[in-house]
Amino acid sequence: MADWLTALDRRAELRAKAGLTRRLHPRGADDVVVDLAGNDYLGLATHPEVVAAAGKALSEYGLGATGSRLVRGSTYAHHDLEGTLAGWLGTERALVFSSGYLANVGAVRALVRPRTLLISDAHNHASLIDGCRVSGVETVVTPHADVDAVAAALAGAPGRPGLVVTESIFSVDGDLAPLARLHAVARQHGAVLLVDDAHGLGVTGPAGAGAVAAAGLAGEPDVVVTATLSKALGGAGGVVAGPAGYVRHLVETARTFIYDTALPPAVAAGVHAAVELVRAGDDLRAELAERADLAAGRLRGAGLDVSVPDAAVVSVTAPTPEAATAWAAACRDRGVAVGCFRPPSTPDSRSRLRLTIGAGVSRADFERALEVIVECAP
Amino acid sequence: MADWLTALDRRAELRAKAGLTRRLHPRGADDVVVDLAGNDYLGLATHPEVVAAAGKALSEYGLGATGSRLVRGSTYAHHDLEGTLAGWLGTERALVFSSGYLANVGAVRALVRPRTLLISDAHNHASLIDGCRVSGVETVVTPHADVDAVAAALAGAPGRPGLVVTESIFSVDGDLAPLARLHAVARQHGAVLLVDDAHGLGVTGPAGAGAVAAAGLAGEPDVVVTATLSKALGGAGGVVAGPAGYVRHLVETARTFIYDTALPPAVAAGVHAAVELVRAGDDLRAELAERADLAAGRLRGAGLDVSVPDAAVVSVTAPTPEAATAWAAACRDRGVAVGCFRPPSTPDSRSRLRLTIGAGVSRADFERALEVIVECAP
Ligand SMILES: Cc1ncc(COP(=O)(O)O)c(C=O)c1O
Ligand SMILES: Cc1ncc(COP(=O)(O)O)c(C=O)c1O
Repeated sequence: MADWLTALDRRAELRAKAGLTRRLHPRGADDVVVDLAGNDYLGLATHPEVVAAAGKALSEYGLGATGSRLVRGSTYAHHDLEGTLAGWLGTERALVFSSGYLANVGAVRALVRPRTLLISDAHNHASLIDGCRVSGVETVVTPHADVDAVAAALAGAPGRPGLVVTESIFSVDGDLAPLARLHAVARQHGAVLLVDDAHGLGVTGPAGAGAVAAAGLAGEPDVVVTATLSKALGGAGGVVAGPAGYVRHLVETARTFIYDTALPPAVAAGVHAAVELVRAGDDLRAELAERADLAAGRLRGAGLDVSVPDAAVVSVTAPTPEAATAWAAACRDRGVAVGCFRPPSTPDSRSRLRLTIGAGVSRADFERALEVIVECAP
Repeated sequence: MADWLTALDRRAELRAKAGLTRRLHPRGADDVVVDLAGNDYLGLATHPEVVAAAGKALSEYGLGATGSRLVRGSTYAHHDLEGTLAGWLGTERALVFSSGYLANVGAVRALVRPRTLLISDAHNHASLIDGCRVSGVETVVTPHADVDAVAAALAGAPGRPGLVVTESIFSVDGDLAPLARLHAVARQHGAVLLVDDAHGLGVTGPAGAGAVAAAGLAGEPDVVVTATLSKALGGAGGVVAGPAGYVRHLVETARTFIYDTALPPAVAAGVHAAVELVRAGDDLRAELAERADLAAGRLRGAGLDVSVPDAAVVSVTAPTPEAATAWAAACRDRGVAVGCFRPPSTPDSRSRLRLTIGAGVSRADFERALEVIVECAP
């Protein structure tokens, strides 16, 4: 009867042999590191105005939303945040989910009809992939950032509804999808373009409105934007923004919206305060862009294989999974937290360090961290 | 190019004609209703100790966890909560997810091997169904609470790994699954039993440890428990509890764990405070059980078709979806919030009012609310 546990043990041993073990390492509130691993790009998770807004809503509403959005979970904290997000993103309407993951699953599924052809970039996030899976329709995975392949797939399914799904700033290598060209191809074939702007929102675009806005696609009737509220916005939750009729469709039919407890009102209120700070953060965004270039240049200058960052994600190749783990651990020992990405969390067999450049780190600490990364390189 | 929106409009019209429109109605913090719709069974979402614990962690850690659990998102708030949950539930280990929805999807998928036969109760929650779907293996949906059907399905697949998936207290009708018999059948065939204890945790069982503990199944090596932290615990997030080897497997492979931002530390800390209150809440649980019986008896006495509550969910049949909506609205106008469940949120074609009995409501208000429900009945 405990056979299944023996089988799991064997699989754990195989992972260990391949250098692919993952362990949880809890941190304390007083953990002093130079953080190039978290996604709090603008340092807003700990911003006094964000914490104060969340604390106020916490004392007013209590902790949990106590129900799904359609039952007891919708509060003015959610409602007001949605209005602000729609205005910022330039869409008719925006809907808050309890996570970016569930937002993506719900957003993809709600766009699919039985004959839809789904076209998904090979580097897409797990949540987008799961959205494709639960949709249960034919899905073509196109080579990364390959607009011609998307065009060919759409051309090969004339008369069928098409849905093109992509990230904006890809989470592993930090490169930007060719959004304008993808949109042109989608429009030519009457398809809808869904863009997950998780790593673009707050980091790029006019007033930080993200990569979709930067590409001039905000508010287009055949574009849907999703994002997490947990990265540049420093909180948690997800959002889907697009035409009002589509958002109404989500409210009325999206399982991951209907059958899920609402985001805690305090989190919604804190994120709302963060949006206002993000919109006013052009100086922080300029600093981020400069630091990303600096990091890529400095690490490349040291002979490392580095991605060309389009926003604030910088990826550095490691020779093996074990080397990536050891490299990240060595940096950690010297007070620098970096992300360590190994298969299957990478879209290819390459392991990487992933640096998320944050404005919350002082310039001196940031430059020292780059030195540490170089000195610890395998 | 806006064809897709026209198609969505048509579907919205069809829903409207069938009385199946859903609209968001945000509430304020000062919304004074007798709440028989939310899932805050013990009134802990607004408990001063819960709010204080969350507020303390908020000021220490900031708002968001800033990353996934394996990158920057694990804090001592998560770690400590997991230790307490495992001790309470009597399992080797417990793992916190950002929602009960994602916990269920991750828990089911992690139990499935390519040849697994999944057996899912017809009344199971959307998140369990999505877990089955993304698993991509053969799934048999058995009639509700039908142990013989489960046994027959397992017997029909000799030599294949089996996974039996059920809720404990079913969320729509409030009835309890035959857990001990399901477990006996599962064990006989070497299958694993997964129980979603969302509506049992905190409401039933020794020290509120839920329906699985009440059935004497806590810590069995072939039982996995999932739950949301958003109902009796008054917060948000989800948990999967079971054998250590299985939880390690989740940490290392579950997509909805790995590729998702961690629950905000403040929420984890608030839920932790709630667990301590729940454990000491035998008097509240006795009150809940008595109120559930009272509600069922009183409504049945008024000629309504009422479920037999096994915990704190009471379901009352409405003749049509429109009647359910009007009934709930009439109650709301008289200061009583009740849940309104219509297809496809009900496992059959019946619409219902759903009452979740809360201990946060005064006895006098509770009794008055029952009168209002009777007086507003269609
Ligand atoms: C590209 C992308 N999409 C979606 C998500 C999921 O968002 P969340 O963490 O809010 O579930 C993430 C990160 O976690 C992400 O990087
Ligand atoms: C039975 C059941 N399972 C799972 C969930 C999902 O949990 P969460 O709301 O935390 O996503 C719910 C309620 O929302 C539920 O009622």
